[in-house]
Amino acid sequence: MYLDRINQTGDIKKIPAEHLNALSSEIREFLIEKISVTGGHLGSNLGTVELTMALHLELNLPKDEIIWDVGHQSYTHKLLTGRKNDFDTLRQYGGMSGFPKRRESECDVFDTGHSSTSISAGLGLCKARDLTGEKKTIVSVIGDGSLTGGMAFEALNNAGKLNSNFIIILNDNKLSISENVGGIPKYLNSIRTSEGYLDLKDDVYNKIAGTPAGDSIVKNIRRAKNSLKSLMSPGMLFEEMGVVYLGPINGHDIGQIRRAIKEAKRFKRAVMIHVVTEKGRGYAPAIRHPARFHGTGPFDIETGLPKKSSAVSWTNVFSTIMTKLGDRNPRICAVTAAMPDGTGLKRFANAYPDRFFDVGIAEEHAVTFAAGLAAGGMIPVVAIYSSFLQRAYDQIIHDVCMQNLHVIFAIDRAGIVGNDGETHQGVFDLSYLSGIPGMTVCAPKNKWEFSDMMKFAASYGAPIAIRYPRGPVCEELEEFRTDIVAGEAEWIYREEEIALFAVGSMVSVADEVRRKLEEKGHKASLINARFVSPIDKETVREALRFHKLIVTLEENVRSGGFGEKILDIVNNEKLLYPGIGTKCLIISLPDEFIEHGDCRILKEKAGIDADSVTEKILNVL
Amino acid sequence: MYLDRINQTGDIKKIPAEHLNALSSEIREFLIEKISVTGGHLGSNLGTVELTMALHLELNLPKDEIIWDVGHQSYTHKLLTGRKNDFDTLRQYGGMSGFPKRRESECDVFDTGHSSTSISAGLGLCKARDLTGEKKTIVSVIGDGSLTGGMAFEALNNAGKLNSNFIIILNDNKLSISENVGGIPKYLNSIRTSEGYLDLKDDVYNKIAGTPAGDSIVKNIRRAKNSLKSLMSPGMLFEEMGVVYLGPINGHDIGQIRRAIKEAKRFKRAVMIHVVTEKGRGYAPAIRHPARFHGTGPFDIETGLPKKSSAVSWTNVFSTIMTKLGDRNPRICAVTAAMPDGTGLKRFANAYPDRFFDVGIAEEHAVTFAAGLAAGGMIPVVAIYSSFLQRAYDQIIHDVCMQNLHVIFAIDRAGIVGNDGETHQGVFDLSYLSGIPGMTVCAPKNKWEFSDMMKFAASYGAPIAIRYPRGPVCEELEEFRTDIVAGEAEWIYREEEIALFAVGSMVSVADEVRRKLEEKGHKASLINARFVSPIDKETVREALRFHKLIVTLEENVRSGGFGEKILDIVNNEKLLYPGIGTKCLIISLPDEFIEHGDCRILKEKAGIDADSVTEKILNVL
Repeated sequence: MYLDRINQTGDIKKIPAEHLNALSSEIREFLIEKISVTGGHLGSNLGTVELTMALHLELNLPKDEIIWDVGHQSYTHKLLTGRKNDFDTLRQYGGMSGFPKRRESECDVFDTGHSSTSISAGLGLCKARDLTGEKKTIVSVIGDGSLTGGMAFEALNNAGKLNSNFIIILNDNKLSISENVGGIPKYLNSIRTSEGYLDLKDDVYNKIAGTPAGDSIVKNIRRAKNSLKSLMSPGMLFEEMGVVYLGPINGHDIGQIRRAIKEAKRFKRAVMIHVVTEKGRGYAPAIRHPARFHGTGPFDIETGLPKKSSAVSWTNVFSTIMTKLGDRNPRICAVTAAMPDGTGLKRFANAYPDRFFDVGIAEEHAVTFAAGLAAGGMIPVVAIYSSFLQRAYDQIIHDVCMQNLHVIFAIDRAGIVGNDGETHQGVFDLSYLSGIPGMTVCAPKNKWEFSDMMKFAASYGAPIAIRYPRGPVCEELEEFRTDIVAGEAEWIYREEEIALFAVGSMVSVADEVRRKLEEKGHKASLINARFVSPIDKETVREALRFHKLIVTLEENVRSGGFGEKILDIVNNEKLLYPGIGTKCLIISLPDEFIEHGDCRILKEKAGIDADSVTEKILNVL
Repeated sequence: MYLDRINQTGDIKKIPAEHLNALSSEIREFLIEKISVTGGHLGSNLGTVELTMALHLELNLPKDEIIWDVGHQSYTHKLLTGRKNDFDTLRQYGGMSGFPKRRESECDVFDTGHSSTSISAGLGLCKARDLTGEKKTIVSVIGDGSLTGGMAFEALNNAGKLNSNFIIILNDNKLSISENVGGIPKYLNSIRTSEGYLDLKDDVYNKIAGTPAGDSIVKNIRRAKNSLKSLMSPGMLFEEMGVVYLGPINGHDIGQIRRAIKEAKRFKRAVMIHVVTEKGRGYAPAIRHPARFHGTGPFDIETGLPKKSSAVSWTNVFSTIMTKLGDRNPRICAVTAAMPDGTGLKRFANAYPDRFFDVGIAEEHAVTFAAGLAAGGMIPVVAIYSSFLQRAYDQIIHDVCMQNLHVIFAIDRAGIVGNDGETHQGVFDLSYLSGIPGMTVCAPKNKWEFSDMMKFAASYGAPIAIRYPRGPVCEELEEFRTDIVAGEAEWIYREEEIALFAVGSMVSVADEVRRKLEEKGHKASLINARFVSPIDKETVREALRFHKLIVTLEENVRSGGFGEKILDIVNNEKLLYPGIGTKCLIISLPDEFIEHGDCRILKEKAGIDADSVTEKILNVL
């Protein structure tokens, strides 16, 4: 086993060149085996084994620096930088992250998780290097999907004027997560299919120069500035932006990649090496099902099937609702940012292809495009995960809410998401959305309410966001199903003493807390907030009348969240009626970034599980 | 006067073609005269007179639709759609907005204000048109500066696959606000300078085809897919993305633009018409000083000089501080998103060109690029207006704060900005920034504290944001200048009864309130919060001990702001010490979008001026 010799950074350089292919096979086996147990990102990592090896062979880490865009493809990098033994704890609480982390290794120079940041970060590191007079090679590795994100373009536009070395590796696997969209992917495809372009360029040039009219033609061509270059370079688009283009290169040929890196190092410019890789390479099920093996749970290596059949998720329910809504109302459209599978919109896409829009990894455009659809009379449902929707904060304010357009935001992965960690936790949306004037924010307690809320949203006529968590849908409290009325909370149990005022995923937790409090001899009302913005003030007033403690419960950071807003309302009531003696207790996630790990553990650590909440309440009473 | 005949939408079509140039001159005179009185965006409007006229001649408004990117260039459009008489109230409270507003005219189909949204919105309107079976022409007008924004690229990437008509007019004035940066502007320049390209393409093609080797060459070229096209089209970059390119066109030749629009309408594709215009055309001072006349106050038409010499602004002070900081510490860098003049960084740029980075209208890239600089050991100061920084919300969370990088955010135009209205008010930053874990948010009370705070920030070692308003810097309270200590508020006056707890621009207002309260026989302490995140809990506790009312004052929306955070702290204290009877009153902007108008009027309407605040306090006592 060559893999046995890989124990710390640089060890790969001791492996003789003729055995590198054997090592790459061993790495693949290792990754498949480990990820089959822990779950993780498989396809992208299998695609970048040789690329990562070539980088580690040509660079001197940690002096030289690699920035991994998104970062889920950094497993081989982790393996080659002394973290092989940490793979058993991959994405587990307290274990190794599935993304680059500065705190984990000096070879991880920049944390990633969201898409399209690597060229910007790399450019910053290059400028810092040049200003401090250091000598090192800086490489950003970005996928073709990430290149559809606008900030990658903003960065390329700036990279074009760099006058020192910066290597951008375009890892082109022809897929973002499921399938790429738009002009750029089409363009990359045209490069890939123009095989033999290297021969061609010499051929054309020689023939032109050899003809009688040749000189004048060449002169004319030169006068037309970049035209000759475009004839000669398949990476014209990047060259036009001022970035040197090398490629396309076979991304599974270590020698070819190494030569390209050597070549790229020579330029005092930004250089893009276009590397073509195969997502899932070396594992047939991952090649056949790229979306499923993009991020996977534990699976059976033989069959490729998931180890446990997953319960019905919130996403599944959304998928069903959307298809029904699309059927009933021809104005309903669906917009996703490169996540047709993850958001559950695939069924809608199949049923109503004309009304389905996958815009690429482009959340900003997705939202303003939806605003345009709404201004034109359609009813767009924009389905974006909570943490990714942060990308479109300004567009939600400026293009949707300021014009009061009827755009529905379906916000999956709201709250703690678990193993993906910090970058993916959806813990800010209640704060950043409910602070926007004109935005209605709501959250369903269970699957029936989710369905009712989506129907409500479809006829709402103004901006509205529905947030729901990752994982199995709540099937409790079925008997409580009153009509959704704008801005009205739902009383589930009316008691006295304590009022539990809970948002979405916390309603069922509050129900459990209620039982635990009863066991201790306390009576508690349960109110399902339904709307976080605007909050149902009348219900707050009612709760104040009959309770000595109001407890708010939300799966969101404290700052700017539901609890603080309730406090504000209660405070106003107390200014008007100084006699009110009701206390308030806010239960929320802490104002901290939350690491990766099992959701149950993370919730306990954050103190939002039923036991912790009950204890906090008893302490206050 | 042909202008007299222009009273409602469509009137321009009644002007004989031979008099259109006369009309354009009259429109220019009209704009210069009106803006010299009210102030407004001059340069961009003078540059687009003929373009707008041509659009109104070729389109049928309001059936056909024009989306104006940013929207400050829409004055001629307003004039041609029945709003000529409203120019006397331009940007005044209750008057006509300086930007397109759906509520103002049915000819304004999509509100704008921030950059780079028009292609996304236009594409949404096109899809809605196609789905509803309507027939109309949709045109987005976007400047070359706006094209450096990533979301314009995201939209172009999607426009490339459209199979119905959509006209994008690239209004290329070779400037964004001051000067363009990066590969795209350079590329546009190369198109503009390749004059005679139309003749050239025939020339080359004929000569190649005429030679003995010609046929085989042409065949080879075709095999290389887009290469021939690139030889023939100067808009190669856009064509590569799947967008038909027409141009470049003289943007002051009405006939030429009309022919291009006619031509563009024929395609069942997205078509970009590249129109070259001159910013400030027809008014020499505006051509000489594009940045000053981008947005101007009232000025003297003869000389072009401002009518009143403006007081020293917060921006001026920032400009001075930055130059000093740059002098003292070679690690200090400055980053702006196309606003070297507006942010006051021009002086820094002149003094330290190597450490100054204008990245184009690209806030997302700006922030992550700065994170890269910081990861590489530099200390970047990112100067972006409050409302534009909303664009980089995710990057601040994901790339700066999650890695705890020492990036300094200098946030100008925080609070009410006045005449630019809704889209430009900086009223959310305290909420969206202070909700981010690890972000320190502060605001200075006057110019001396601003300077101290910037110095403090330069050695802080973690993410920190300093917000300050538009307009004249506060020169009051000079005698109160204690050292800035992390997370500590400043006691200005210690009294009993009422504690005024004020943020930044509201400290001097609170000082005035204090005097008014004294006149009414009430004693009031004055506390300068300094830090909005983290809040100085010890000072809150102290205030609780000696006061029966705490009043928070901030120039920010209520939701998620300083007041709600103070309430949370006070509430926690009350849970621990139920005896505390101190009341709380939050003074903030309402949770609403705030229209355009004079800052003084807007503050009164919002109830944050000294009189309104005093009244509210007296009501509560």
